[in-house]
Amino acid sequence: MKMTVDIPGHKYHIHIKKGILQEVAKYVDLDRRVLIVTDDMIPGEYVDALQKQCGESYIATVHAGEPSKCFIYLQFLWNAMMENGFGRKDLVLALGGGVVGDLAGFAAATYMRGVDYINIPTSTLSQIDSSIGGKTAINLGDTKNIVGAFHQPRAVFIDTDLLKTLDDRNFYNGLAEAVKAGMIADEKLFALLEEMPADREQIQEKYIEKIISKALAVKKDIVEQDEKETGLRQILNFGHTLGHAIESAGELEGMLHGEAVAVGMLQITEDAAIRERLAAVLDKLHLPTSHDYPAEKLLEIIGHDKKVSGKKITLVKVNTIGKAELVKTNMEAFKAQLLG
Amino acid sequence: MKMTVDIPGHKYHIHIKKGILQEVAKYVDLDRRVLIVTDDMIPGEYVDALQKQCGESYIATVHAGEPSKCFIYLQFLWNAMMENGFGRKDLVLALGGGVVGDLAGFAAATYMRGVDYINIPTSTLSQIDSSIGGKTAINLGDTKNIVGAFHQPRAVFIDTDLLKTLDDRNFYNGLAEAVKAGMIADEKLFALLEEMPADREQIQEKYIEKIISKALAVKKDIVEQDEKETGLRQILNFGHTLGHAIESAGELEGMLHGEAVAVGMLQITEDAAIRERLAAVLDKLHLPTSHDYPAEKLLEIIGHDKKVSGKKITLVKVNTIGKAELVKTNMEAFKAQLLG
Repeated sequence: MKMTVDIPGHKYHIHIKKGILQEVAKYVDLDRRVLIVTDDMIPGEYVDALQKQCGESYIATVHAGEPSKCFIYLQFLWNAMMENGFGRKDLVLALGGGVVGDLAGFAAATYMRGVDYINIPTSTLSQIDSSIGGKTAINLGDTKNIVGAFHQPRAVFIDTDLLKTLDDRNFYNGLAEAVKAGMIADEKLFALLEEMPADREQIQEKYIEKIISKALAVKKDIVEQDEKETGLRQILNFGHTLGHAIESAGELEGMLHGEAVAVGMLQITEDAAIRERLAAVLDKLHLPTSHDYPAEKLLEIIGHDKKVSGKKITLVKVNTIGKAELVKTNMEAFKAQLLG
Repeated sequence: MKMTVDIPGHKYHIHIKKGILQEVAKYVDLDRRVLIVTDDMIPGEYVDALQKQCGESYIATVHAGEPSKCFIYLQFLWNAMMENGFGRKDLVLALGGGVVGDLAGFAAATYMRGVDYINIPTSTLSQIDSSIGGKTAINLGDTKNIVGAFHQPRAVFIDTDLLKTLDDRNFYNGLAEAVKAGMIADEKLFALLEEMPADREQIQEKYIEKIISKALAVKKDIVEQDEKETGLRQILNFGHTLGHAIESAGELEGMLHGEAVAVGMLQITEDAAIRERLAAVLDKLHLPTSHDYPAEKLLEIIGHDKKVSGKKITLVKVNTIGKAELVKTNMEAFKAQLLG
């Protein structure tokens, strides 16, 4: 199926189809200089399949994992383009998870003040969430996504066959963002997650495409209304304020992004009935429902969060499944809730 | 006087007034965190005047000169903001020439995916040209402006009193861009430059504000029509293809930007009568009309230019003063012209 993201001046398609990795050149012009950015955990045959379709391709491989969203790799990508004579009409192609997408997208946003960028997400997390929306970024030290740009891709290709090589933990990790999408804006998606069996093979065969399209439809709808996150888009941060803090607190040994968001969503949900339903879904998806970091540590990290301005913090609350609202809270009240 | 740059979604004012440095807070909100980016040649009293008007200000001083448009200083500015808790609503204020403006603007474009940015240009060059238009960038190695972003300032303040502390060479350097503006789009501006006396004090007292407003009006008009340089905006590059090459060839000991553009404009102008008038104006402004770099060296540098795509090069030609056209030329033909 094909979905269109209609952001003024930056309209693009999301192609969702098993095996589409083999047919990217049918949809976009690859007959130019192409920098394929990938990581060292991505199977070589995925890279080969792409390279065969490109005119003049170059491969930039970064280490898998969050620390690669850094300054050094950003320079590495800029230099790879510069040294190979990339011009304004050439292309950056991200083949990997959220880390590769964010890093490659930021390099594309800034090389010559912006070149084309195509995203082929390979993880459940990036297929369900981070591959669309145009947020690109790197981290500085411990601070996530502190530097970046809004740069919409020219196209996104979602090949659910690529998920087969993921281990269980990474497969389920991304589904947390589908749970989020259901919670904030799509009751039916949430119901689907409740109904489906607790079996990875069945989910992958029969449910995953539907889950991905529904979750992306939620995100697309919000991003179209508020590309630059001046208001509405903030509801996509449901579970993320605490989630980011939990993720940072654990550093390299801690929770994955989706896992931390799972815990974050549960902690911020006040209605007991909703909490129960949410916990059951998370449980089925092998996602955690609690953490053991001290609240003080999390609060310190939250103080550095982009969403905090001065003494106020904007929280996303869900009081009815499928509906979110933004609540501006005193930092002190939020602290009390978290410590209490 | 006040001029409005009307780019969709990024409307802003240019305030041109002697002494306006003392009154910036009257026009924009400085009651927030402000990072004042400046260089070590800018008089301390300019910085003091600004700092007095700010809520919570931090000063980041870079070395004066082109090498500061680099990666290291970009990091320095990002870190200065991060370490001082800058949020999305805070401000970067550039107080300096084109180098400071480009560097600070790029840092502002990317910190938290974009924070407000105000430009107070202090050189003739930046007051006449680079302070408006929204192009920000750094260099990588010898390659100028290879990495950057389009990020429009929230406001630009042009205080011609600040030009008094410039040495003669830097004062006249910037006027080359006014000559360019006249050549490509404003016959009357060119005539004004022809008529005015060859005396810096008189130019500064009686002419400079008019020259700056007319040159900025040319640029504003073009940028409004083509912010991202997909077509028309390229005419602002008149004299710049060769100019950039001459500038690069000389490295640190070579010509200043305006000087190199002066030579570049003259070399690319074919009409003998126009050449004569152009040379006379450049001469009056103490700008060079020739260089002694080998053509081969310049051609090699031009090969890396952003404006070159494949075997074609887009040149800006002026056959009537006040009118420019874009001419796509074979790289081979251009080579022959340059070598011949």
